[in-house]
Amino acid sequence: MFAGIDIGGTNIKAVITNREGLILASGKERTPKTAEEINTAIVNLLQKMLEKKGFRITALNSIGIGAAGAIDGKKGIIITSPNIQAWKNYPLAPIIEKKTGVRTFLENDATAAVIGEWWIGHGKKFKNWIMLTLGTGIGGGAVIDNKVYTGQSGSSMEVGHLTIDYKGKQCPCGNRGCFERYASATALVEITKGKLKKNKSSLHERIKTADLTARMIFEEAKRGDKIAREAFDEVGFYLGIGLAGLVNIFNPEAIILGGGLSRAHQFLLPIAKKVVAERALPGLKDNVKYLIIKNEDKTPALGAAKVGIDSVGI
Amino acid sequence: MFAGIDIGGTNIKAVITNREGLILASGKERTPKTAEEINTAIVNLLQKMLEKKGFRITALNSIGIGAAGAIDGKKGIIITSPNIQAWKNYPLAPIIEKKTGVRTFLENDATAAVIGEWWIGHGKKFKNWIMLTLGTGIGGGAVIDNKVYTGQSGSSMEVGHLTIDYKGKQCPCGNRGCFERYASATALVEITKGKLKKNKSSLHERIKTADLTARMIFEEAKRGDKIAREAFDEVGFYLGIGLAGLVNIFNPEAIILGGGLSRAHQFLLPIAKKVVAERALPGLKDNVKYLIIKNEDKTPALGAAKVGIDSVGI
Repeated sequence: MFAGIDIGGTNIKAVITNREGLILASGKERTPKTAEEINTAIVNLLQKMLEKKGFRITALNSIGIGAAGAIDGKKGIIITSPNIQAWKNYPLAPIIEKKTGVRTFLENDATAAVIGEWWIGHGKKFKNWIMLTLGTGIGGGAVIDNKVYTGQSGSSMEVGHLTIDYKGKQCPCGNRGCFERYASATALVEITKGKLKKNKSSLHERIKTADLTARMIFEEAKRGDKIAREAFDEVGFYLGIGLAGLVNIFNPEAIILGGGLSRAHQFLLPIAKKVVAERALPGLKDNVKYLIIKNEDKTPALGAAKVGIDSVGI
Repeated sequence: MFAGIDIGGTNIKAVITNREGLILASGKERTPKTAEEINTAIVNLLQKMLEKKGFRITALNSIGIGAAGAIDGKKGIIITSPNIQAWKNYPLAPIIEKKTGVRTFLENDATAAVIGEWWIGHGKKFKNWIMLTLGTGIGGGAVIDNKVYTGQSGSSMEVGHLTIDYKGKQCPCGNRGCFERYASATALVEITKGKLKKNKSSLHERIKTADLTARMIFEEAKRGDKIAREAFDEVGFYLGIGLAGLVNIFNPEAIILGGGLSRAHQFLLPIAKKVVAERALPGLKDNVKYLIIKNEDKTPALGAAKVGIDSVGI
């Protein structure tokens, strides 16, 4: 048995799987704030899932973890992370390994999602495709000739930091006009906030008692709120801008969207596809298929599990 | 013996090579205006080179041609080309094949340059690298895991049409803010023209008798002309913007620059590298090597020859 963990900004998701990717158990927990609490939450979640099936945690052959940020996979270290401040040169895999007695491996969360989709999801149908994970930021990955491309240091496809406007919005990474400043869940919230200053919206009522979230905007867009819809139109436009550039570079068979914001594909994709049709090159844009991640709740955790499976060997 | 031809906007360059890439002869001719004249020039150039060595054209096992534009390699057709208007669904390879009696193959010129560099040039030292051909436009290619990546339709890496400013300059391709509108030889000329309207420069004297060219700007920059230098600084900045995005996506071991403008690397690269250092992500930008194409005059033609060698088999 193998465990896969996907640590998101909001939830920790876990699966227990066999070697072939059959899910034996799955679970979910709110992501706590501190690094210490996250470690405990991971172990407790796995224990709870395994106990239900009558197993101890040591029955696991490996644990694979996907986490946002720059990862040193060999050492199991999170170099820096956008979500958790305390994750700075943080040896997450060794810590979990010590706590559980199970060999533990670490991978970037967007890469884990690609591996999951390649292993068990839509990716199986294509040889050359790209994936974008639309969440707090934008992660991504490319599968080239049926292999997940990782670059020289194992950290390629930081598509979120593709420049779409070199004079544009400042990004914490140091660059200006990064794609994720325009087409992530964070960007959706920011763009909506700007619109709310000058316009009536059903969102005004909701933000009296809580901070604005992408989920709220999605819910109000479904109810027909004009401002929420406009914000999605704008993000969909920027999504198309970034995708057009990626189509011109990768000439992929398919683009697969994952991440929380991909749930709102009915609002994002039609306009994004239109922008790609207007802006990408003929011949390159013509046969691209657009798909949504097969199982946003489980695929990234499955991909993380696969990292462990392939690392422990037999 | 195998021939390789590189049809550029200015010159047609040719090599005769053996199967291992040893150059037996090379030659060069001005590129004429019409499609008919180009066909004749190709055949004459090859005949002249071969006659010197005591051979007829039929001694060739194959001819490989690299040409700018969208190519259908299987049919040997140029679908569209930025350089030659008459090349619209133009069956260049079948025509040359008929004229010479030698099997002829067609490839995009930037891809041919990548193949040449991968086969015989700096590319041999790396597994994952990208190449940019800075000419009239910007072509490019990626080598992934030691294989030239071509995408689903054989036409990936249209890096010249990566968007660096989605509200930016209109590109004939239909997009706005394409990289090649800012960092190609054409862009250098355009940017310099803008500066010449308001500033003194040694270039004013030269453009009394001839149209401004990238070569003139390069020559005057070498002589210390302030405006020419400023124009190179600007193009170098934009080159850095595009490269930063590509580094964030590909995390390459090396970036190799080719094309006519790569000859001016002393003016372009220092500033481009600075911009990449400022804008690309740590971890991804740290170990990138910058190299100039090994032999701008022969490598693209050699790559075209290699396409023929691999296509004819034994």
